[in-house]
Amino acid sequence: MQKRNATVAVIGAGDYIGAEIARKFASEGFAVFAGRRNGEKLAPLIEEVQAAGGTIFGRSLDARKEEEIAAFLADADRHAPLEVCIFNVGANVNFPILETTDRVFRKVWEMACWAGFLAGREAARLMLPRGGGNIFFTGATASLRGGSGFAAFASAKFGLRAVAQAMARELGPKNIHVAHLIIDSGVDTEWVRQRRLEALGPDALDNPDLLMPPSAVADSYWQLYRQPKSAWTFEMEIRPFGEKW
Amino acid sequence: MQKRNATVAVIGAGDYIGAEIARKFASEGFAVFAGRRNGEKLAPLIEEVQAAGGTIFGRSLDARKEEEIAAFLADADRHAPLEVCIFNVGANVNFPILETTDRVFRKVWEMACWAGFLAGREAARLMLPRGGGNIFFTGATASLRGGSGFAAFASAKFGLRAVAQAMARELGPKNIHVAHLIIDSGVDTEWVRQRRLEALGPDALDNPDLLMPPSAVADSYWQLYRQPKSAWTFEMEIRPFGEKW
Amino acid sequence: MQKRNATVAVIGAGDYIGAEIARKFASEGFAVFAGRRNGEKLAPLIEEVQAAGGTIFGRSLDARKEEEIAAFLADADRHAPLEVCIFNVGANVNFPILETTDRVFRKVWEMACWAGFLAGREAARLMLPRGGGNIFFTGATASLRGGSGFAAFASAKFGLRAVAQAMARELGPKNIHVAHLIIDSGVDTEWVRQRRLEALGPDALDNPDLLMPPSAVADSYWQLYRQPKSAWTFEMEIRPFGEKW
Amino acid sequence: MQKRNATVAVIGAGDYIGAEIARKFASEGFAVFAGRRNGEKLAPLIEEVQAAGGTIFGRSLDARKEEEIAAFLADADRHAPLEVCIFNVGANVNFPILETTDRVFRKVWEMACWAGFLAGREAARLMLPRGGGNIFFTGATASLRGGSGFAAFASAKFGLRAVAQAMARELGPKNIHVAHLIIDSGVDTEWVRQRRLEALGPDALDNPDLLMPPSAVADSYWQLYRQPKSAWTFEMEIRPFGEKW
Repeated sequence: MQKRNATVAVIGAGDYIGAEIARKFASEGFAVFAGRRNGEKLAPLIEEVQAAGGTIFGRSLDARKEEEIAAFLADADRHAPLEVCIFNVGANVNFPILETTDRVFRKVWEMACWAGFLAGREAARLMLPRGGGNIFFTGATASLRGGSGFAAFASAKFGLRAVAQAMARELGPKNIHVAHLIIDSGVDTEWVRQRRLEALGPDALDNPDLLMPPSAVADSYWQLYRQPKSAWTFEMEIRPFGEKW
Repeated sequence: MQKRNATVAVIGAGDYIGAEIARKFASEGFAVFAGRRNGEKLAPLIEEVQAAGGTIFGRSLDARKEEEIAAFLADADRHAPLEVCIFNVGANVNFPILETTDRVFRKVWEMACWAGFLAGREAARLMLPRGGGNIFFTGATASLRGGSGFAAFASAKFGLRAVAQAMARELGPKNIHVAHLIIDSGVDTEWVRQRRLEALGPDALDNPDLLMPPSAVADSYWQLYRQPKSAWTFEMEIRPFGEKW
Repeated sequence: MQKRNATVAVIGAGDYIGAEIARKFASEGFAVFAGRRNGEKLAPLIEEVQAAGGTIFGRSLDARKEEEIAAFLADADRHAPLEVCIFNVGANVNFPILETTDRVFRKVWEMACWAGFLAGREAARLMLPRGGGNIFFTGATASLRGGSGFAAFASAKFGLRAVAQAMARELGPKNIHVAHLIIDSGVDTEWVRQRRLEALGPDALDNPDLLMPPSAVADSYWQLYRQPKSAWTFEMEIRPFGEKW
Repeated sequence: MQKRNATVAVIGAGDYIGAEIARKFASEGFAVFAGRRNGEKLAPLIEEVQAAGGTIFGRSLDARKEEEIAAFLADADRHAPLEVCIFNVGANVNFPILETTDRVFRKVWEMACWAGFLAGREAARLMLPRGGGNIFFTGATASLRGGSGFAAFASAKFGLRAVAQAMARELGPKNIHVAHLIIDSGVDTEWVRQRRLEALGPDALDNPDLLMPPSAVADSYWQLYRQPKSAWTFEMEIRPFGEKW
């Protein structure tokens, strides 16, 4: 593996998608800065990446706090130029409108939209003086469609998409590639598997084509990163071939 | 004027659009509950509507406070059944991403999205037991497009639209018409006229076709209210015939 | 009924939607020019409208023929100024892609898109010199979504929508209101009722909220016609309150 | 170069985008079947690809003829399994609506939509029995927006997009990746350069960031081809970083 003089920051480096993004960019020679709420849970990932010869740093990070985000990204940028920032915090909930409490609505927004705004802005602050960079946001079906029961989640995801669009239009001409990756599928995680079994019964997992492996998301981010500036994609929707849409 | 046994709540009853909505529904026999931040400013509107034989009540209202919204709507509903709730709070700002402060981003969201969620949910709480009603939200060009400099405003407006969609899909089958009116134009207010003069010079107001009179917005809401339940519109975009899109 | 010095042309004046549009505009004092493939089938409609004191003329019309469309609209315009032209020809079919023959694909396009282009263009030719008018097109769910099996129908309906958009952007500033009405539902016709019974069984028609009465479509067109030029809608989607979307 | 037992058919193998697609897939070991109206013009491309060790066959092809398309694809499939079919025929024109003749409207549709339907259907016919394949369509800004003057071109491009959507939804679950690549920019061709100079004056070409190099389009197709079936993109929009949108 050839090391690069560049870091990628993964905000929301959970066990599935976030971890795969970290693995992928580490395997391509990036120094990875991985942040998640409880940083101790990053230990196995760090061990694995380092064993493979990669460079990775784990941090506890409350992405809703401006100072924490700013410090996390500044750290990354001190290590080597921050070339990619990926915001990957989710907060999927479903409640009938009358049972959507103030607390839930506000918390989901803080995690999925507000934190993304902070991350994007602070990454831009570091990238603009250098004249380049990549800022990517993870979206979902709910980024485009407010389904019944999704007032809180869709509202946050719509809001995040607007942040991404506004940043893309302002920063694109300044050579910062802002993109929004929409995952139109359940991702193959333990949590999703349990929900499917509960909702659809014991056959729910028989069709392997309906869940997206986290590595496919990481590969899509790699694709976006590799696009030449003469042909940037702002938004890319991905789904498994068996998914209805 | 034939009085109806019905109220309309106008949340964000400002001098222009909100006032026209109040006038229109009052002239059609509705009792109007008009709320705005500084309720004293409603005095001229109240006087005018009453002089024309209409029924109207004005209230100071901080739409970001759950208790205030709930009390305001409960008051309206005690007077006569709450048949229509219109959320009309705006918060248009434009800042480069690096100058979009935490405070601005959060405040714009609280006014334009969070308050709309509260209003919609509390209106639904009153309407569901009666099996019917109308909940309308005012949108803007920024509800569909995150333009450069609009990270805060578009994020809030996207978020409000998601709330409206989720509510429409859940509450439509329960006979509550939820709609989202997109005003794709500047509305003809003193504030907009000043901005245009500053930005475009002394000729900026020569073309009368580019600004939308507030009464046209009120008429559009009346159209939506009048739709039979066999042919409801969720989203309606309106613009003056001279507007580019 | 007060007669107006104005005609409406209804191209595709079938037994359901088209007939209701004719009834509505006739009842509002318009002279109606109704065209359909087999003009003899218009006899009952003509009799009914005339009995109610309305003015109506029926014509056999192959809307895919430029000369026929031009002559039909010129006739209407000679009677009284052509104020509204409504294109309402449908051609809903569903075939797997391999069974979508050349003949079907081309014929559906000629009926649902090509004929609409001809109608819109020839109406514009008559309206532009007078500096005003209304050109409306009937769309469907398939105008926005190419579902499985709908290559032919959706392709034609997408194409018609593009014609409407291009005309709206060019002609709006010249005071011609071009609009596209999307009916996101089955319309309550004998044909649709039979299809539902075949597909869904004897209970298929128990829920009266799932089919749209043709008169609701006519009312929506009337709404669009009545919009002031300071607040035009280009596209309006309507669906019954029980419809999933 | 390692040769593959697979062909790619490029329908609309013009001097710019089509030629680059041919070069790219040839360089990756595909046998290329390149078709364009006047097959003789393919000579320099064939020479170049063969000199580089690639395999390529050129054909004169009127893509609007069912038999020619069918024969062209069958030929390709006989050489080696048809793994990718790319439809790349364009027909960009701009006329005011009154000057959009029947002939132009029909011809643009036949080239840009009808031929695409034929190509997609015939490719599917060959791919379905083998249980896999890739069918890609080239779109444009006009695939999503009917701008003033674009009634003919946008109508055809909207229609092509609907074909792609319907095929993707039907064939995706059968392991055929159908995708639609939207090029939201002028592509850097001699023709586009001349148009820009005429329209915008001698400085029109000073900014190299506004035109997309044809090779970027070819690379995007390669990206789409390389996606694993667990994460397919149906639609991808690409634009140069300096482009307004």
